[in-house]
Amino acid sequence: MKTIIKEVLLDTRQNRELIDITERVIEATRDSGVTKGICLIWSTHTTASVLVTENERGLLHDVISKIGEDFPQRGTWLHNIIDDNAHAHLAVAYLGPSVSVPIAGGALTLGAYQSIFFVELDGPRRARRVVLEVIGI
Amino acid sequence: MKTIIKEVLLDTRQNRELIDITERVIEATRDSGVTKGICLIWSTHTTASVLVTENERGLLHDVISKIGEDFPQRGTWLHNIIDDNAHAHLAVAYLGPSVSVPIAGGALTLGAYQSIFFVELDGPRRARRVVLEVIGI
Amino acid sequence: MKTIIKEVLLDTRQNRELIDITERVIEATRDSGVTKGICLIWSTHTTASVLVTENERGLLHDVISKIGEDFPQRGTWLHNIIDDNAHAHLAVAYLGPSVSVPIAGGALTLGAYQSIFFVELDGPRRARRVVLEVIGI
Repeated sequence: MKTIIKEVLLDTRQNRELIDITERVIEATRDSGVTKGICLIWSTHTTASVLVTENERGLLHDVISKIGEDFPQRGTWLHNIIDDNAHAHLAVAYLGPSVSVPIAGGALTLGAYQSIFFVELDGPRRARRVVLEVIGI
Repeated sequence: MKTIIKEVLLDTRQNRELIDITERVIEATRDSGVTKGICLIWSTHTTASVLVTENERGLLHDVISKIGEDFPQRGTWLHNIIDDNAHAHLAVAYLGPSVSVPIAGGALTLGAYQSIFFVELDGPRRARRVVLEVIGI
Repeated sequence: MKTIIKEVLLDTRQNRELIDITERVIEATRDSGVTKGICLIWSTHTTASVLVTENERGLLHDVISKIGEDFPQRGTWLHNIIDDNAHAHLAVAYLGPSVSVPIAGGALTLGAYQSIFFVELDGPRRARRVVLEVIGI
């Protein structure tokens, strides 16, 4: 069994932002030499997530708009007594911290329109940390 | 370590539809010979998802209704300039592309009421592709 | 390759409740002897989930409030003809049954603010069952 663990550090520029990390994940998978297995992409943050969607400019705006509508900044969240980002925590609790992609024939089994995105919801921030782990044979 | 990768192709009949794929996943797990490991079920689409719920006819209607309420078709999504299915992309960005189930004693550790569903959100379509991967010992 | 499977049984006290299970997951990971791999945390229920967020008292109230707002008890759900808990099923269909965490250097790669929670949405209940599976080398 082979395993490889890599860290990706990302500086984000906006409060809410999608960053395409597909190439980084493809590279980690290739470097692992794993032909059959799983690639796990893990955000180490509670105000930043990972998701899969199509990399189409309009759609990326729509995703950010939708998250903004569904998880609005609001004075009534109790967490906002401590920090003004309850809405970001709530969105990430729903969206989840990770994505697991199958590897077959040495490549991720991504469909034609699937790209992997880091989701900043409380930026801008420096050195957001994503763990890429590949396991398999 | 053992691995098995299978593809399931599904023809969907409705615009929004849940298709129970539990038997296919059980079959792939059994065929793998894996007694302890993970089964990863991956939708290769950005307008179709995978989820786990109870296979009760009323509830399946409720799930489809709820997704329709939360992700309504809307003229204001930017992606709709290109294609009229932003609402389906948004639902799948939230619901995620996959489910990972533990395998113990040669079987999926599904609870009494847990079934695995393919979630069509932009159908009907032919040959929707789901990847089943089992890894373990 | 090493694997370990453990079950955690939880008695819940409230209708909606978050229970921090991070220590149990850390313990299972340590006991497994796995230094590089994946820990999969699986709820065997369709009305209880697993999620990752910060263990801050106000925020945990906010998460429960938000789920209550987004998945209200409602007479019109068809599943309620059978059982009065469609809202709990719907929330779990969205939130998902599991979390997969990378293991590196013998430890979970949790960020400074990440804790793992069992999410009761139809309690109180006795002996809610969570499967912890660690695989790796």
